[in-house]
Amino acid sequence: MNEAVTKWWGWGEEGRRLELSDRAVSMLREMVGPAEPSPRVELDEVAMPEARDLPDSLRAIAGEVGLLVAHDQRVRRAAGRGYVDLVNLRSGRLPQAPDAIALPADAAEIVAYLGACGRDGVAVVPFGGGTSVVGGVTPIAGPHHAVLSLDLRRLRTVDVDRESMTATLGAGLRGPEAEAALRAQGLTLGHFPQSYEQATIGGYAATRSAGQASSGYGRFDELVTSLQMITPVGELSTLATPHTAAGPALRDLALGSEGTLGVITQVTARVRPAPQARHYEGFFVADFQAGVAAFRELAQAGTLPDVLRLSDEEETRTSMALSGTGGTTRAALDVYLRIRRRAGGCLVIAGWEGERESLERRRAVSTSTLRSAGAIALGQRPGRAWLHARYEGPYLRDELMDRGYLVETLETSHEYSRLTELYAGVRDALRKSLSSGGASSIVNCHVSHVYPDGASLYFTFIAPARPGREIEQWRSAKTAACAAIVAAGGTITHHHGVGVDHMPYMRDEVGETGIEALRALKERLDPAGIMNPGKLISSGARLSAA
Amino acid sequence: MNEAVTKWWGWGEEGRRLELSDRAVSMLREMVGPAEPSPRVELDEVAMPEARDLPDSLRAIAGEVGLLVAHDQRVRRAAGRGYVDLVNLRSGRLPQAPDAIALPADAAEIVAYLGACGRDGVAVVPFGGGTSVVGGVTPIAGPHHAVLSLDLRRLRTVDVDRESMTATLGAGLRGPEAEAALRAQGLTLGHFPQSYEQATIGGYAATRSAGQASSGYGRFDELVTSLQMITPVGELSTLATPHTAAGPALRDLALGSEGTLGVITQVTARVRPAPQARHYEGFFVADFQAGVAAFRELAQAGTLPDVLRLSDEEETRTSMALSGTGGTTRAALDVYLRIRRRAGGCLVIAGWEGERESLERRRAVSTSTLRSAGAIALGQRPGRAWLHARYEGPYLRDELMDRGYLVETLETSHEYSRLTELYAGVRDALRKSLSSGGASSIVNCHVSHVYPDGASLYFTFIAPARPGREIEQWRSAKTAACAAIVAAGGTITHHHGVGVDHMPYMRDEVGETGIEALRALKERLDPAGIMNPGKLISSGARLSAA
Repeated sequence: MNEAVTKWWGWGEEGRRLELSDRAVSMLREMVGPAEPSPRVELDEVAMPEARDLPDSLRAIAGEVGLLVAHDQRVRRAAGRGYVDLVNLRSGRLPQAPDAIALPADAAEIVAYLGACGRDGVAVVPFGGGTSVVGGVTPIAGPHHAVLSLDLRRLRTVDVDRESMTATLGAGLRGPEAEAALRAQGLTLGHFPQSYEQATIGGYAATRSAGQASSGYGRFDELVTSLQMITPVGELSTLATPHTAAGPALRDLALGSEGTLGVITQVTARVRPAPQARHYEGFFVADFQAGVAAFRELAQAGTLPDVLRLSDEEETRTSMALSGTGGTTRAALDVYLRIRRRAGGCLVIAGWEGERESLERRRAVSTSTLRSAGAIALGQRPGRAWLHARYEGPYLRDELMDRGYLVETLETSHEYSRLTELYAGVRDALRKSLSSGGASSIVNCHVSHVYPDGASLYFTFIAPARPGREIEQWRSAKTAACAAIVAAGGTITHHHGVGVDHMPYMRDEVGETGIEALRALKERLDPAGIMNPGKLISSGARLSAA
Repeated sequence: MNEAVTKWWGWGEEGRRLELSDRAVSMLREMVGPAEPSPRVELDEVAMPEARDLPDSLRAIAGEVGLLVAHDQRVRRAAGRGYVDLVNLRSGRLPQAPDAIALPADAAEIVAYLGACGRDGVAVVPFGGGTSVVGGVTPIAGPHHAVLSLDLRRLRTVDVDRESMTATLGAGLRGPEAEAALRAQGLTLGHFPQSYEQATIGGYAATRSAGQASSGYGRFDELVTSLQMITPVGELSTLATPHTAAGPALRDLALGSEGTLGVITQVTARVRPAPQARHYEGFFVADFQAGVAAFRELAQAGTLPDVLRLSDEEETRTSMALSGTGGTTRAALDVYLRIRRRAGGCLVIAGWEGERESLERRRAVSTSTLRSAGAIALGQRPGRAWLHARYEGPYLRDELMDRGYLVETLETSHEYSRLTELYAGVRDALRKSLSSGGASSIVNCHVSHVYPDGASLYFTFIAPARPGREIEQWRSAKTAACAAIVAAGGTITHHHGVGVDHMPYMRDEVGETGIEALRALKERLDPAGIMNPGKLISSGARLSAA
């Protein structure tokens, strides 16, 4: 990945755009009203805190490769890719930036960096693709006098064990790099989150990423069989065995630790044969409830497709309006609505991958369930359109932000018995917050991951941004949504992670004792508190025994 | 469960025996030589340390129910059900015993007990079915002046969420009790370890139990969606959501914690519809390698039966010799060997459960793979025999011990690429240790759990016990096997847990940093160190930052 070709101010490759059609723009204006286009500053206009001097010990470790300290290098590691990050980048006002960037060659160099940073009071932010949308890579110094961004791009080993069907992958490999190396051997990792093109193996592990095809291939935390994490007090490596009952699962401590306990340097993950065939198609169901009920039936019968998504009524309308495939799908929807003599209707995308014969067998079973639930088949075109556009969301966000819109996503999950309550609560909270002052908004939701006991809900919301008050507007909506999630007993994050944004809700998530458990780990493995300060859990007083 | 009807000295119901046929006894003698029958003492002859006085604070919490202090009550909580436990019980010499037994009614009473024990220096051993085979319930006082056994049998709530297909189950429910409550609603937990009849929900969770049908229903740690654990500093409860990315998985810290961090009081677990049909059958494969290769193919293709087991040559011979079904299976084996013109051959048991039509579909796919691998179908009789005998192993052990034989089991797992090395290493180490002094032994192995990346190996070994030196003889074999496991990089335990026996190998399993992580949790959640002392990890000095 040549970083010169990636946008410093937005998502993905410089120059790659997802241009909105005039029709899409006018429909958007119709739905949420006009917005004031928001100009972007130039890279050299970006203001950020001046780089602080770093100890010579770090320079000595860097050797000939050196530490990167140039303006553009610092800008590129100063923020993740959440809405707030993008507002800051585009406006050219970065509240934080790393003081330098190190490019360690291997685990041994990381050990050296962590040792030196611990001794000399430098915070360390492990950096992979920089795609966190919750502040996970925000360079916060905490009590330390500088921040070193530890860019893991040189950790790119690929070691395949064909017999065990596992691959040991360096943390710095981006999704497409890992996938290409595996495809060359006829294999796939099967992990395709929306951030796939930019995010890294280490990031997937550190945040418990869930790919779009997780129903079929498994979430990333299910794919990982073992890992290596360098902590400030030593290396934590778990055995590469298919299962163990040897105490609490330390692998599951490192997964999701978001760089706060150490640097994940490599993971061993299950791989599969690359699929011989893929089949993606669309369906319409009468409403969101009917769709959820059908998904529940599929999951509980063990007959889930590999990809299964259900857009609510609003998302169904919005995505048809904004996507290039709106025409076709809209015509199908019109037919559907005429047949049903009613308004509404929800789009379902289902996809199967694998060996041709088994794919057809599995598809027959699950489509039969969908049809029994009243789903109308739309054929492969909407499925292909979804596949084609599966990584486009963040490119669309750049376009919408250019045009002056706030656009953000958040996700949660719950058991089926409380999913409707969670859905309505979050949707209504977002609508209420975004419409304060009489503005209009779009609040879309889709079911993105389906389990036997429940499902995840993925919300996307769009509203005209309030110029100069974008972050305040965002915070109000985000806070309202998080409060609704907590009230319904849902999880504060299904796959985006905690970072900075969800830290205030960790007590609701895991309770006081859970926080203490995490603090105990943090204090023991990172006694100087240098690892990714200000993320996951706040520092605070200990509990004492009752 | 009326405990008066369970054996204080062995396994399961008093009076229930698995009598060996004369033919089995003579074959056993032929294989490993004669042994000197070992008499058992009577219950009132059992010697154990005198009960120490417990603080009044505990008596106050117990209220009218009281603390149990009678001889037989103490004997029944003085040991688990490993070989060493049984040797101690049968010889009437118990090195440890709890000073009293509490029967808490609910979580609130457990909070009170832990508080009082922490203040007054009393160790707490959470006690479910008492079936640990690794010393997990050994009442070790550690630095404390007494031991309270916390028997959880009164925690028996069952709360089913049919929509989410989950059940919240009290920790004290034994396997059959939980299953009966679920069956009354047409559901099953699907968790059937060999200890099923005696072990409890809390024990399954605390030890990461794996049932015989884990390929189909999932291991217990995969079934659990959330749990409640009372620690000395407070309650740790995880949210009942299908998945979360909110940091390290605290559920996976409680699972496998073996009572060292707190008392698991209830778990919420996924349940399924009770199977409409079951089909179990037997196959023969040429040798162990061929069987493993076929299992690997099934697992990697995602077409595993719900139960799948492969006995090695020696186990195939032994089980036919010792079981009542030897005749039929032996005749089939003879036919097989004649066809193949060779010695050896390994028994495979495969089982499918579920809705009739899908069962047949799945069975067709997997039997086709087995046949392609050269497996010869033996029909349903060996499958039914296995089902009938699935919980009989520990009863057989009682018979063998009566007759003066050492009999013990241990388990491990590894990736396929190192499974043969692990298998040969452990088998040879056990043979060598048991045959020291020229004795004969039986060392059986079967693959008990199958994964896409590897499998578990379950060893059973039998030898004439050395009267008066049984524990020494056992320790030598166990130590040799554990050293072989560590040398091959396998896990020290696939599903029995760590307890006392595997504690010395935890450093090999999780490394110095892993031990420190576990210690940090222990010290924070159990600052007085009262929870199940002497298990999982030893106390020791901390690491300091590099």
